Amino acid sequence: MSTPEENFAKLGLSLPPAPKPLGVYKPLLVDGNHCFVSGHGPVQDNGSLIIGRVGAGLSMEEGKLAARQVGLAIVATIKANLGSLNKIKRVVKVLGMVSCTNDFEKHPYIINGCSELFASIWGPDLGVGVRSAVGMGSLPGNIPVEIEAMFELNENI
Amino acid sequence: MSTPEENFAKLGLSLPPAPKPLGVYKPLLVDGNHCFVSGHGPVQDNGSLIIGRVGAGLSMEEGKLAARQVGLAIVATIKANLGSLNKIKRVVKVLGMVSCTNDFEKHPYIINGCSELFASIWGPDLGVGVRSAVGMGSLPGNIPVEIEAMFELNENI
Amino acid sequence: MSTPEENFAKLGLSLPPAPKPLGVYKPLLVDGNHCFVSGHGPVQDNGSLIIGRVGAGLSMEEGKLAARQVGLAIVATIKANLGSLNKIKRVVKVLGMVSCTNDFEKHPYIINGCSELFASIWGPDLGVGVRSAVGMGSLPGNIPVEIEAMFELNENI
Repeated sequence: MSTPEENFAKLGLSLPPAPKPLGVYKPLLVDGNHCFVSGHGPVQDNGSLIIGRVGAGLSMEEGKLAARQVGLAIVATIKANLGSLNKIKRVVKVLGMVSCTNDFEKHPYIINGCSELFASIWGPDLGVGVRSAVGMGSLPGNIPVEIEAMFELNENI
Repeated sequence: MSTPEENFAKLGLSLPPAPKPLGVYKPLLVDGNHCFVSGHGPVQDNGSLIIGRVGAGLSMEEGKLAARQVGLAIVATIKANLGSLNKIKRVVKVLGMVSCTNDFEKHPYIINGCSELFASIWGPDLGVGVRSAVGMGSLPGNIPVEIEAMFELNENI
Repeated sequence: MSTPEENFAKLGLSLPPAPKPLGVYKPLLVDGNHCFVSGHGPVQDNGSLIIGRVGAGLSMEEGKLAARQVGLAIVATIKANLGSLNKIKRVVKVLGMVSCTNDFEKHPYIINGCSELFASIWGPDLGVGVRSAVGMGSLPGNIPVEIEAMFELNENI
């Protein structure tokens, strides 16, 4: 069975820099055998953020790619803070927030961009947790997607 | 003292089918002595969802009934995944999200539709946890209410 | 090293009354060595709420002050329920929700009003947890900020 690090390497995706906090918070906090990750935005490889609103400038596919980029930013934060993706045993909970027009209805499709990434890394069972995918009035810096997450840590590592 | 299952039976409410995931997530996840439930929508007995926006087509009473229906969908998910409502010791946390017009102010009244159901099942103390009740820009499939929850499991069962 | 209670006293801030629930929920719930706090609004010393929407009537500075007032309401709830701020070991997680216009982008600045208060009380490390700061379509009673939080309790007290 391959490890999360090996699974991620196979995807051939590049990692953005782990984002620095935009306010008074920590990007990641370990609490017992859990790890909480702050709301992350879609950080690109050059450190800039994808901006825009789904349904008003950004298409659904662009929104889903933005959510994947949020997932990559979370992965970067995990590696920067814990050293290895292998420290994570499983995904417990994801809150996926989409900045979109009021008539937008496909939030789950958008957030799948992040969830499918996590499932590729930690597997179809351990990589999939509970989730809410919802539409916000606005997000910081006009980003289209912000995601916070909670993971269970692997005790064996 | 009557059990949660007995309390629910006394209410005489019918249960909708436990909703299937609309994306890459689990409806419910057990983590130690806690149980996390994904954001649920107002599933009706025939499996369809109540749709609409509170303050724009849906009245406050209709919104509260939708929140109760979300609670029933959560109950259906608990029974489908854990087998019995008696496995739940108490409600820890509820996040109640209302899709409504920007000038809507009665989110707590809406979400009480779910919270009163939980209090009827698990009692006025154990059935009541912490809560936020807030207004979203939009929700998946144009549902008026989405609720996610965290419960503590009963060790004795 | 000074205690959280001493740190708070040094700030010279007055505490609003601990808010009564506006619905079927508890303001605070202890679960093992964690303490969950319901979504709080900006309660003022006379018990009334700051109301308005950031970007439409309320300025950014007024929004940040509202977030500090939410923090003070949370502090009041902690003292009313646990007796002392010293019972809290550290901040684990904050969800900061801002009611604002769709084009507003400075949510982290607003929520810092609460986070800086917590950092002053519990210190620059233990007083700072993970966080999401996001924009809502609306909030109960037309308040500009609602914040929910999770703390770790101090076992030594």
